[in-house]
Amino acid sequence: METVRVGLVGAGFMGKIHTLAYRNAAMLFGSAIPVVDPVVVADFDPVLADRAVRDWGWSRTAATWQEVTAADDVDVIDICTPNDTHVAIALDALEHGKHVLCEKPLALDAHDAHRLCEAARSTDRLTQVGFVYRQWPAVVMARRLIDEGAIGDVRTARARFLLDYNSDPDVAMSWRFDRARAGSGALGDIGSHCIDLLQYLVGPISEVTARMQTFVDRRRRVDGAVADVTVDDQTEILAHFESGASGTILASWAATGHKCDLGFELIGSRGSVRFGWEQSNELQFYDGDDPADRLGFRTILLGPTHPGADDIHTVAGQGLGYNDAFVIAARNTLRDLAAGTTGSIPTFVDGLRVAEVVDAVIEAAAGGSVVPVTRRAL
Amino acid sequence: METVRVGLVGAGFMGKIHTLAYRNAAMLFGSAIPVVDPVVVADFDPVLADRAVRDWGWSRTAATWQEVTAADDVDVIDICTPNDTHVAIALDALEHGKHVLCEKPLALDAHDAHRLCEAARSTDRLTQVGFVYRQWPAVVMARRLIDEGAIGDVRTARARFLLDYNSDPDVAMSWRFDRARAGSGALGDIGSHCIDLLQYLVGPISEVTARMQTFVDRRRRVDGAVADVTVDDQTEILAHFESGASGTILASWAATGHKCDLGFELIGSRGSVRFGWEQSNELQFYDGDDPADRLGFRTILLGPTHPGADDIHTVAGQGLGYNDAFVIAARNTLRDLAAGTTGSIPTFVDGLRVAEVVDAVIEAAAGGSVVPVTRRAL
Amino acid sequence: METVRVGLVGAGFMGKIHTLAYRNAAMLFGSAIPVVDPVVVADFDPVLADRAVRDWGWSRTAATWQEVTAADDVDVIDICTPNDTHVAIALDALEHGKHVLCEKPLALDAHDAHRLCEAARSTDRLTQVGFVYRQWPAVVMARRLIDEGAIGDVRTARARFLLDYNSDPDVAMSWRFDRARAGSGALGDIGSHCIDLLQYLVGPISEVTARMQTFVDRRRRVDGAVADVTVDDQTEILAHFESGASGTILASWAATGHKCDLGFELIGSRGSVRFGWEQSNELQFYDGDDPADRLGFRTILLGPTHPGADDIHTVAGQGLGYNDAFVIAARNTLRDLAAGTTGSIPTFVDGLRVAEVVDAVIEAAAGGSVVPVTRRAL
Amino acid sequence: METVRVGLVGAGFMGKIHTLAYRNAAMLFGSAIPVVDPVVVADFDPVLADRAVRDWGWSRTAATWQEVTAADDVDVIDICTPNDTHVAIALDALEHGKHVLCEKPLALDAHDAHRLCEAARSTDRLTQVGFVYRQWPAVVMARRLIDEGAIGDVRTARARFLLDYNSDPDVAMSWRFDRARAGSGALGDIGSHCIDLLQYLVGPISEVTARMQTFVDRRRRVDGAVADVTVDDQTEILAHFESGASGTILASWAATGHKCDLGFELIGSRGSVRFGWEQSNELQFYDGDDPADRLGFRTILLGPTHPGADDIHTVAGQGLGYNDAFVIAARNTLRDLAAGTTGSIPTFVDGLRVAEVVDAVIEAAAGGSVVPVTRRAL
Repeated sequence: METVRVGLVGAGFMGKIHTLAYRNAAMLFGSAIPVVDPVVVADFDPVLADRAVRDWGWSRTAATWQEVTAADDVDVIDICTPNDTHVAIALDALEHGKHVLCEKPLALDAHDAHRLCEAARSTDRLTQVGFVYRQWPAVVMARRLIDEGAIGDVRTARARFLLDYNSDPDVAMSWRFDRARAGSGALGDIGSHCIDLLQYLVGPISEVTARMQTFVDRRRRVDGAVADVTVDDQTEILAHFESGASGTILASWAATGHKCDLGFELIGSRGSVRFGWEQSNELQFYDGDDPADRLGFRTILLGPTHPGADDIHTVAGQGLGYNDAFVIAARNTLRDLAAGTTGSIPTFVDGLRVAEVVDAVIEAAAGGSVVPVTRRAL
Repeated sequence: METVRVGLVGAGFMGKIHTLAYRNAAMLFGSAIPVVDPVVVADFDPVLADRAVRDWGWSRTAATWQEVTAADDVDVIDICTPNDTHVAIALDALEHGKHVLCEKPLALDAHDAHRLCEAARSTDRLTQVGFVYRQWPAVVMARRLIDEGAIGDVRTARARFLLDYNSDPDVAMSWRFDRARAGSGALGDIGSHCIDLLQYLVGPISEVTARMQTFVDRRRRVDGAVADVTVDDQTEILAHFESGASGTILASWAATGHKCDLGFELIGSRGSVRFGWEQSNELQFYDGDDPADRLGFRTILLGPTHPGADDIHTVAGQGLGYNDAFVIAARNTLRDLAAGTTGSIPTFVDGLRVAEVVDAVIEAAAGGSVVPVTRRAL
Repeated sequence: METVRVGLVGAGFMGKIHTLAYRNAAMLFGSAIPVVDPVVVADFDPVLADRAVRDWGWSRTAATWQEVTAADDVDVIDICTPNDTHVAIALDALEHGKHVLCEKPLALDAHDAHRLCEAARSTDRLTQVGFVYRQWPAVVMARRLIDEGAIGDVRTARARFLLDYNSDPDVAMSWRFDRARAGSGALGDIGSHCIDLLQYLVGPISEVTARMQTFVDRRRRVDGAVADVTVDDQTEILAHFESGASGTILASWAATGHKCDLGFELIGSRGSVRFGWEQSNELQFYDGDDPADRLGFRTILLGPTHPGADDIHTVAGQGLGYNDAFVIAARNTLRDLAAGTTGSIPTFVDGLRVAEVVDAVIEAAAGGSVVPVTRRAL
Repeated sequence: METVRVGLVGAGFMGKIHTLAYRNAAMLFGSAIPVVDPVVVADFDPVLADRAVRDWGWSRTAATWQEVTAADDVDVIDICTPNDTHVAIALDALEHGKHVLCEKPLALDAHDAHRLCEAARSTDRLTQVGFVYRQWPAVVMARRLIDEGAIGDVRTARARFLLDYNSDPDVAMSWRFDRARAGSGALGDIGSHCIDLLQYLVGPISEVTARMQTFVDRRRRVDGAVADVTVDDQTEILAHFESGASGTILASWAATGHKCDLGFELIGSRGSVRFGWEQSNELQFYDGDDPADRLGFRTILLGPTHPGADDIHTVAGQGLGYNDAFVIAARNTLRDLAAGTTGSIPTFVDGLRVAEVVDAVIEAAAGGSVVPVTRRAL
């Protein structure tokens, strides 16, 4: 596969980021990855689809997403629409024999995520869910350290994703605050990244207890009407892993002072590793085998010697940003498409594994006791 | 009260720190506080008691702690013995009409802590439990910020106390690893500081869920025999507060890479405040009312303008250390003794309030569900 | 000017970064800036020029740079070639009535830089020199703080650019280590960024003393021959500013442990501000007017409320990287081209003002005494 | 020498700190060091001397410092008086056969410092100058790393001591702002610590260029009269070392936002090490021999495995403060007195070596060119 023909559904903020990533990947990696052909784009708002053609280089618009998923001249469907539309689009894309890239969360619950996985399993199509952070160089390097045994057995895992853009009670009501359309609030929107990261690094979570809080329980719509917020502003989780490790997860979009504070720490029997997005080009690593008088967390500035973006950096510390995260993900996708494997990208199965934890968390928060994570067979 | 006559029980590490604190307080604060007269000292090991007289300035030894609590020429009993001896000594001291300072934890469980509070309540004696961290300048400043409304309502509270000196499986078995003598492990030893800090800053914890882990479950005694470790190496807690806030607490003495990592963060509706002992002379404060383009956590270096140690610092950032924490606590104790009040020190009641949470945590960890904290009347 | 037709000279690393920037700017800013038409590209190595057409979207190659500067269908010449070729290309471009963007350093010395400025002055063409860091959001925000008086009069200025990629004596000899081709070493390559930043923020440097050091004085060429290194590995400068401020500059590309450590601190009579590239999305600001018990450097995470990239960020702390620096510079260039002004970009005159300081530094280092910076009239 | 009989001259702030240090050292180190007998104290202000007897444990007061230096029952004279009185007292003490500890700066210039060294050389008395920071654990550890070759050859040295307590123009005129009494301003008061640290770690400074600035040039005395400030608020130095290293020193007591910011960085051919007092319990170390993907500055929390305070710490990161710096210095003094050597303390010769640099800096700042440091024979 030398050229990948893409159909994009959803031309808002995330559609733009994906488009940028395809274009940059083509330039940065040249012949190492397939060429992207941006064939067709649809959006519920036709103005956005038109903009994508005019300003972003897409070849044509489609009137409906169904036209995109059915298009004969498209290999991959890229889904950047609101959460509650993912399942229908992805199922249809699979039925039309397309590869499917879907933004997270894959579905509103594990039941639907499982349906998608079942549908995908009967094909040889590549699937991906948009967990970009596990593909970030510092995270890939953390995984390398774990795989090499550099921190020993992980005993304790802590993750957080804290932002404060919804601290303000004047933020307008939207579908994100509506459980029917979003599934959950901070939990699904940002906590899902924490869950994916920890499962990627430590393995499956086996049981959880949790508390969910809503700090602003009514918000005004843009049309002036007041509506109930039916999702969590914050979710706190005690998690147990199959490996025996335990940990905590804290997700909040009302955490005053925290701007983009995704992070984790893994404490092992021999060493520890920690990361925070607000210093996203650093990884902190403690090597318990260092000489006794030289023990200490070292701050590794990511660069060309590290996995995940060794083909982007020229010197360490130069700095990658948010947009680069999507360039890296696009490179991985295109590389996997060329190879016909899913070696480096999170697939629908990973999306399901997160959704199963999310379901357990919601149940645990409601019931006040430990809930085992139900794993669905595939 | 111009002179405070002290009897010390326990002349090990903590007895030494207390002695140093009395001496330094006398010099640093001069006539602002009573003079300490170090009258009598006892230890289970008479060699240690002798050393306290020879090297530390105590006037005489006593053969038993009972001689100390009964001594007519003593006003205050300072208890620095292993956890399981606190209750008997403190009760006897109170019965002899002494003021009592007791190292933490006050007792092995809330039942015994309550007995002590009951005993104290019937007297006018001053009691204190050794929670030094809440008296630390940065913590007192955090409390001031909360009291002034600078962070609004606390929504989220996070605390941790992480050390790694028991990561090593070769650390010998001792009473600290024996539930019968220690009550619990990391939970009571260091988690209790987190609980006290959060209750001091956010108010009473009302319910908890928890997980306790033992990473090294057998240790060799110094005599060569192998024994079971019956306490936790790590305890993780989800806590709910009466105020409506929620939070997490993580206590571990096997957290590889963490040397003395006591810390907390309080996230409020208007601002946030955070602290870590490894940078103990700093407090981080986020003021949500700052101009939009100047929002950010500021790093306050503690100094003469801050409460708690304004009479110690000459310039900010000069730096106070661990020993100073006990000097500050001694100053507070002596000041309160002079005033006949307990305005600035944590009393036995605070010790009970922590013990009640510890009991609930142990129960929650065993049962896997939310446990309300049982509060005893006083 | 709705479309800007660009001719690129130099299709190596920097040519790639510029190309990426044009493409991303077009997508990110849409109709707010002119469209870029990548017309023609030349390189001394025709393979690189071909790659630029094949992979990067340039329309055609030219056999020589002279074909590019003379092309009728080009408005702007973008110069990304080695240092010693800048002057000839830029002069020719100006003679052909083109706007000129030139990577730094503008010329090997102030004499040649002045010739360029003279040539540019007689036209109405826009000129730019590639000082991207002064266009970086945190730096623009620092300038805003200074302009608003938030730090009072700048008394002390410190800047550094430290890297260690030439610490290794096995790095091969290249034109960068040859004074005849590079002008100077760390001084011109990276120290020039420090000089530009400080002059942008504090005003003209009026006199300097300096020390230059070469740590590795012989290097092996790729052909095996050994050659003398004739430039500095490190330059240290004491600078005095016209404003009365004084400061230090340290530039080294052999600073073991420092990966991309560009930074500065400005200490003023009312406040201070500091920045380091390794945390490039942060700006630290100390406001001396804060309440006495709340004084401290605050860490501002750059985002949509800050100048310079308010049209890129969606939330603060999301993170911009090295490539984004060039996107921002491209946006500024295109915006200025559309407006016909040079409001937000560093022009050839800024390049000259840096070159004059560089000349003075070299003279001061040779002579061991204070050297005034000679300013050329324009 | 089992007991050291001390006479103290100067019972102000520094006399108090020294007294506290003697007392704490006695308790902390027990029989490992001699017992201190606080025999006699004098101060120009008799009220202060009386306080030292009443509150600090000194046995008697003397009416004049001459009584102290002449006292038969005293072994050591400890000088804590203003700078311009050091020489006379120290000379007299040496003439009376006493060991002498003198606060820094040893003298107002190198000429007088040399006289003291000459006087001391003819005796076998131990001398000490109060450079406490070089005895601080993190600094001693830095020295160990250098001695072990862990950072290779030091190429670049940077030191700073920045405070802002004299930024305020309302700070009253005092002897510290008067060149005749203080010798210099920030240079001698705090810059001297930087010079001592760098000479301790990198070796003798051989030549300097410098700039001195006075930001507040007139101050009001407490009696209301206005006087000229005749010393520097800030001194910036370019220094060259005999070893071939070069470096910068910045000393300012008007550096807005900096509270107690003493620090240094040493960049070597194999590694680097850096330290800042505001995180005084940490040392940062970069080991260039780490594996390529694990390179990074590690943050070492000082503790029992580190030299300098291995007999104080019980766990790393517990934290030492400013007062502990003097306890450590007192321990070193007492240990050296017992051994009859000067293995671990800075002596008058070290004080001279700093004064020689200070003289050269003043000359360089006045003349605007490089000044070699004149070294006096001993």
